[in-house]
Amino acid sequence: MSVSVFEHPVLSALLGDEPVAAHFSVSAEIQAMLRFEAALAHCEEAAGVIPEGSSDRIAEACKQFTPDMHAMKQATVRDGVCVPEMVRQLRATLDPDIKQFFHFGATSQDVVDTALVLRLKPVLAELEARIAVVLEHIASADERFGHRPLTAHTRMQIAIPITVGDKLAAWRRPLQELATGLDRIRGLVLKLQFGGAAGTLDQLGEKSPAVLAQLAKALDLGDCGCWHTDRTSLAELAGWLSQVTGVLGKVGQDVALMAQNEVGAVKLSGGGTSSAMAHKHNPVSAEVLVALAGFNATLVGGMHRALVHENERSGAAWTMEWMLLPQMAVASAASLRTAIRMVGSIEDLGNRDHGGPRT
Amino acid sequence: MSVSVFEHPVLSALLGDEPVAAHFSVSAEIQAMLRFEAALAHCEEAAGVIPEGSSDRIAEACKQFTPDMHAMKQATVRDGVCVPEMVRQLRATLDPDIKQFFHFGATSQDVVDTALVLRLKPVLAELEARIAVVLEHIASADERFGHRPLTAHTRMQIAIPITVGDKLAAWRRPLQELATGLDRIRGLVLKLQFGGAAGTLDQLGEKSPAVLAQLAKALDLGDCGCWHTDRTSLAELAGWLSQVTGVLGKVGQDVALMAQNEVGAVKLSGGGTSSAMAHKHNPVSAEVLVALAGFNATLVGGMHRALVHENERSGAAWTMEWMLLPQMAVASAASLRTAIRMVGSIEDLGNRDHGGPRT
Amino acid sequence: MSVSVFEHPVLSALLGDEPVAAHFSVSAEIQAMLRFEAALAHCEEAAGVIPEGSSDRIAEACKQFTPDMHAMKQATVRDGVCVPEMVRQLRATLDPDIKQFFHFGATSQDVVDTALVLRLKPVLAELEARIAVVLEHIASADERFGHRPLTAHTRMQIAIPITVGDKLAAWRRPLQELATGLDRIRGLVLKLQFGGAAGTLDQLGEKSPAVLAQLAKALDLGDCGCWHTDRTSLAELAGWLSQVTGVLGKVGQDVALMAQNEVGAVKLSGGGTSSAMAHKHNPVSAEVLVALAGFNATLVGGMHRALVHENERSGAAWTMEWMLLPQMAVASAASLRTAIRMVGSIEDLGNRDHGGPRT
Amino acid sequence: MSVSVFEHPVLSALLGDEPVAAHFSVSAEIQAMLRFEAALAHCEEAAGVIPEGSSDRIAEACKQFTPDMHAMKQATVRDGVCVPEMVRQLRATLDPDIKQFFHFGATSQDVVDTALVLRLKPVLAELEARIAVVLEHIASADERFGHRPLTAHTRMQIAIPITVGDKLAAWRRPLQELATGLDRIRGLVLKLQFGGAAGTLDQLGEKSPAVLAQLAKALDLGDCGCWHTDRTSLAELAGWLSQVTGVLGKVGQDVALMAQNEVGAVKLSGGGTSSAMAHKHNPVSAEVLVALAGFNATLVGGMHRALVHENERSGAAWTMEWMLLPQMAVASAASLRTAIRMVGSIEDLGNRDHGGPRT
Repeated sequence: MSVSVFEHPVLSALLGDEPVAAHFSVSAEIQAMLRFEAALAHCEEAAGVIPEGSSDRIAEACKQFTPDMHAMKQATVRDGVCVPEMVRQLRATLDPDIKQFFHFGATSQDVVDTALVLRLKPVLAELEARIAVVLEHIASADERFGHRPLTAHTRMQIAIPITVGDKLAAWRRPLQELATGLDRIRGLVLKLQFGGAAGTLDQLGEKSPAVLAQLAKALDLGDCGCWHTDRTSLAELAGWLSQVTGVLGKVGQDVALMAQNEVGAVKLSGGGTSSAMAHKHNPVSAEVLVALAGFNATLVGGMHRALVHENERSGAAWTMEWMLLPQMAVASAASLRTAIRMVGSIEDLGNRDHGGPRT
Repeated sequence: MSVSVFEHPVLSALLGDEPVAAHFSVSAEIQAMLRFEAALAHCEEAAGVIPEGSSDRIAEACKQFTPDMHAMKQATVRDGVCVPEMVRQLRATLDPDIKQFFHFGATSQDVVDTALVLRLKPVLAELEARIAVVLEHIASADERFGHRPLTAHTRMQIAIPITVGDKLAAWRRPLQELATGLDRIRGLVLKLQFGGAAGTLDQLGEKSPAVLAQLAKALDLGDCGCWHTDRTSLAELAGWLSQVTGVLGKVGQDVALMAQNEVGAVKLSGGGTSSAMAHKHNPVSAEVLVALAGFNATLVGGMHRALVHENERSGAAWTMEWMLLPQMAVASAASLRTAIRMVGSIEDLGNRDHGGPRT
Repeated sequence: MSVSVFEHPVLSALLGDEPVAAHFSVSAEIQAMLRFEAALAHCEEAAGVIPEGSSDRIAEACKQFTPDMHAMKQATVRDGVCVPEMVRQLRATLDPDIKQFFHFGATSQDVVDTALVLRLKPVLAELEARIAVVLEHIASADERFGHRPLTAHTRMQIAIPITVGDKLAAWRRPLQELATGLDRIRGLVLKLQFGGAAGTLDQLGEKSPAVLAQLAKALDLGDCGCWHTDRTSLAELAGWLSQVTGVLGKVGQDVALMAQNEVGAVKLSGGGTSSAMAHKHNPVSAEVLVALAGFNATLVGGMHRALVHENERSGAAWTMEWMLLPQMAVASAASLRTAIRMVGSIEDLGNRDHGGPRT
Repeated sequence: MSVSVFEHPVLSALLGDEPVAAHFSVSAEIQAMLRFEAALAHCEEAAGVIPEGSSDRIAEACKQFTPDMHAMKQATVRDGVCVPEMVRQLRATLDPDIKQFFHFGATSQDVVDTALVLRLKPVLAELEARIAVVLEHIASADERFGHRPLTAHTRMQIAIPITVGDKLAAWRRPLQELATGLDRIRGLVLKLQFGGAAGTLDQLGEKSPAVLAQLAKALDLGDCGCWHTDRTSLAELAGWLSQVTGVLGKVGQDVALMAQNEVGAVKLSGGGTSSAMAHKHNPVSAEVLVALAGFNATLVGGMHRALVHENERSGAAWTMEWMLLPQMAVASAASLRTAIRMVGSIEDLGNRDHGGPRT
């Protein structure tokens, strides 16, 4: 199937991103969910919430667990989320005496949200690493071409002379800021979700704070309490992702404009070919950056719309997040990969009448 | 991979739709592209544009063609579209004397857009058939419960007594209108794309009108001339798809509100279970309808944004369409399937104190 | 105040539109609401719903009515809509014996929606007239420059030679289609809203059909029944408005690209000046067209989101329409006015090395 | 005129906000622009860029300046921005010897962006103060009703018992976070814009750093260099504004659901009246909060779209910001004012069968 370009066997090479998409595979998701469940059991045992010895057996069951995907798929149509069936299936592998202690005190949203966050951690690390590479490529272009004259354009008209270095600085600054801002994003996003049926950890009573703190520590996540209905961290992440594609979309737009035959201020290696015109060298990477910026700018509004939860949990708003956030993350990853490719392929940059590009 | 819920091995059962998604598979896409190429050759031969006898050999080559998907994927990173590589691969299977007559006078966009339209035809037929089923289910509910009293609610407060039939009529009317409007949508959307390099069929000269008319007829598509940069028909389709999800989102919202335990004006069979609360019967279908409405309402703006093409073809705007339209179509299909399921599962409807639902 | 550019004392000249904005003034709105109320009284009297002689007195009161705007403003904070207070104020001017027959059987939404539709009629007429002028200007440009050679650009690169006429045809076609489609939009949008408290005209009983038909006729509107919760016609209108700005945004984008100093394929009279660079002639009109396209493409999604009404009337969804639709209409009007100005200011068009523009 | 609800003589009381809108009036804008120009002259004189004594005369001219608004409006149609004409008008009041030293080295965008930022400072202060009041009202409600039982609802169904305090904590947390985050937003947004024609302060040469630093200090703004094409700070602000309306939209949604007659878990004073149904008490404030959340969630995507600037300045993208950001700020202000009103009007909260609301 290839409803989305991100899993399209052909277009995913252009618009998707395998390393980041891998974190959104169902197997990665289930592993992360089981990691939550096993850690929960350990922390609950340590706090005396569930019987001694039960957590190792639960953890072992998680390790051995092979989900019946067909049953899980069918059940999700009924339940709206895969967790109830996963819990059923896993409990079926446990001895009767500890069945009830698996997933104890937790609700589906605890599992799904924490599993998301556990996978966002490596996703953000990957994006961070790629921003660094784009910045390196910009620095390298600056070393090679930064001193060259370049004609500035404002409002689509020739303005005044600047240097290539000025242009590259304008590309670098916002990207650098986004990299710097990642630590804050991590602080906001990478936090444990654990609230139980209605966010109050009703089944853990006075042991709630201890289990919460332990579980957060065990999963190396922040412990800021339950955020079942507070989705601002995800809206903030969506904003950051869309700013990454937006900033790179501006770089792409600049390259597409400079690469125009009539302007000829940049020369890229490996331009796109045309099925109708053999002479063409289309600035495909630049266009992709603009398209991905437009895509994320479209989706970011949906993440904001999903801030409005009804009461203690909204099925509708929560489901919308599932439909939007993974795509936004992969679009940002694809944008960074494309920017690396494009900036790295700059062979020449600057006004052509000063030794710059000739097309 | 499961970046999008539409191809997620589990969530696709809830939010995706296999029959409609199948039309967006890469194999369906390639088949439709080859269908365009073969028909093009036949019409060009008939018009004397390419040599007699060449079109059968081209059609046979199309039939035998097995794409090297790996090469196509790699080439698409460079070309931004898969057609140039597909043309290269297919030409490699042709005898030297007719190589040049394959894809003659066409450009990548002709192939991609026509292949899209060829697949939108069965997609629209499927959606139409499903609207009819939803309408039947509404009619059936009306027969069973239409006479029952129901309390109207305006601005989230009790208003005055109406009947279940009044409620169902409000569900039916806009859906009926959307069904009626489909013929117009078909007229707008199901049209041949064929313009050559820059929309002027430069290589066909005075034979352009004849080939255009023949090709449209051969593919059973409208012949309204080239629409490389006129994307209003796709924006209109996106609007129709989003109205389908919007209208059904309203139905879902109503059901979610009526199904509240405190209201109890509808009883559905097969409600969702909870991993934390055994007593619950979550109105999952209703929530899914609301989520899908929000999703399409988010994406529709991107399709409008993609109306702004640069000059004779925009890589960036065109690419955005690929990212948005198939998802919107599948979301509408999923919404219709869910509405069929939900309306079909209504066991009781109307005020509980007049013989209606008791939860 | 100038929170919106459409009423900004300076920017409204650039981005707003006085003739169309006038239809959205509060005085035009109140006049339209009173027109509904007076016509309603006449039709109800004719049908024997309210006493003979009462409708003339009601119509006279409507004519004489001067609203206490301050009270109306304060009441709207409480009621969420201005109608209850307007009804109160107007009833206070009526004799006790007919007070109750003013606004009889109607609800706030009947008044507000019908008053909107009554004003959309001249708005659509104005937009239609302007599309005709843009088309004339395109035709005029075609006469003057249509035969000239022009270099086509695809994916931001030089493609093949076309003519100016080819370019102008690509501008004309979608605009012509939008003009043609206006009759259908009128049929959808220009329809009476009259449903009473919950859409069932509960207070009119068996006289409902007669009053409905008469009232529609009196106001020269369609009579398709109550559409309190069926907002598809407004979503469709929003889509049409956004397609107008989108199609003209493409024209603006083309002009901005052709007007680049390095390309010089178009020469406009009266370009924008810069506060820093005296030599510049900024293609301001072209940029405005692109901005307005982006604006409407942003807002159209909100109109789709507002399709999801709760039960028999949604305050929240309805209110969102008020925030979005007038702005979209004025943006389209501004776009058409700007396009008229821009296309009308084309002094030269075509490749500069074939007698075309020199900057 | 009342194209936007924010300046609508009636609806602005419901959906607009006078104190914050005042900062977006054209007079406030011009005052801020002149403040920039006067401060610029002082700093340039201090740095020896313009002659000694000229800045006082320039500052005095700024003080005395009465713009010819009609001329400014007309010129803006040509220039796309009001600054060139304002500069012309003000220079006309200066003696010939210092004319050229007014606006020296600056470009329109420096003036417009800095003038925006100068006004965003009091806007953010006002929003911060209001968040504090909402938090106080929540705290007050907690004191009065926090201990009461309340039935939690998840996925629109009864879940388990919680307390009113649990509900209020879920309202408070994200709002508290947004308040805490304001300092960072201020650091990002409240920064001087000063780059000259193409962002390089070309006319100031080596004195650029000194003037930049002095000017930032004089205007009490951050000095992070020129951000002509780096609009991430405004996208971030838009995201924050939309999170404010989103978080309060969730509060509104909860109140609308709890205020349902069948649920009766909250009692507000002063509910809305209906023109058709005297018995109703519509939760107008709650609905307004949901509508404003939807509005900002719609507009935020446009601000992200505007991240893609062409080269050294984009007329189109910049113009889109003008159309969106002020409205978003006023929508957030209106949302906070409405939340203050609504939370402050809570007369009773909690399950009705435990001494809570009875409708």
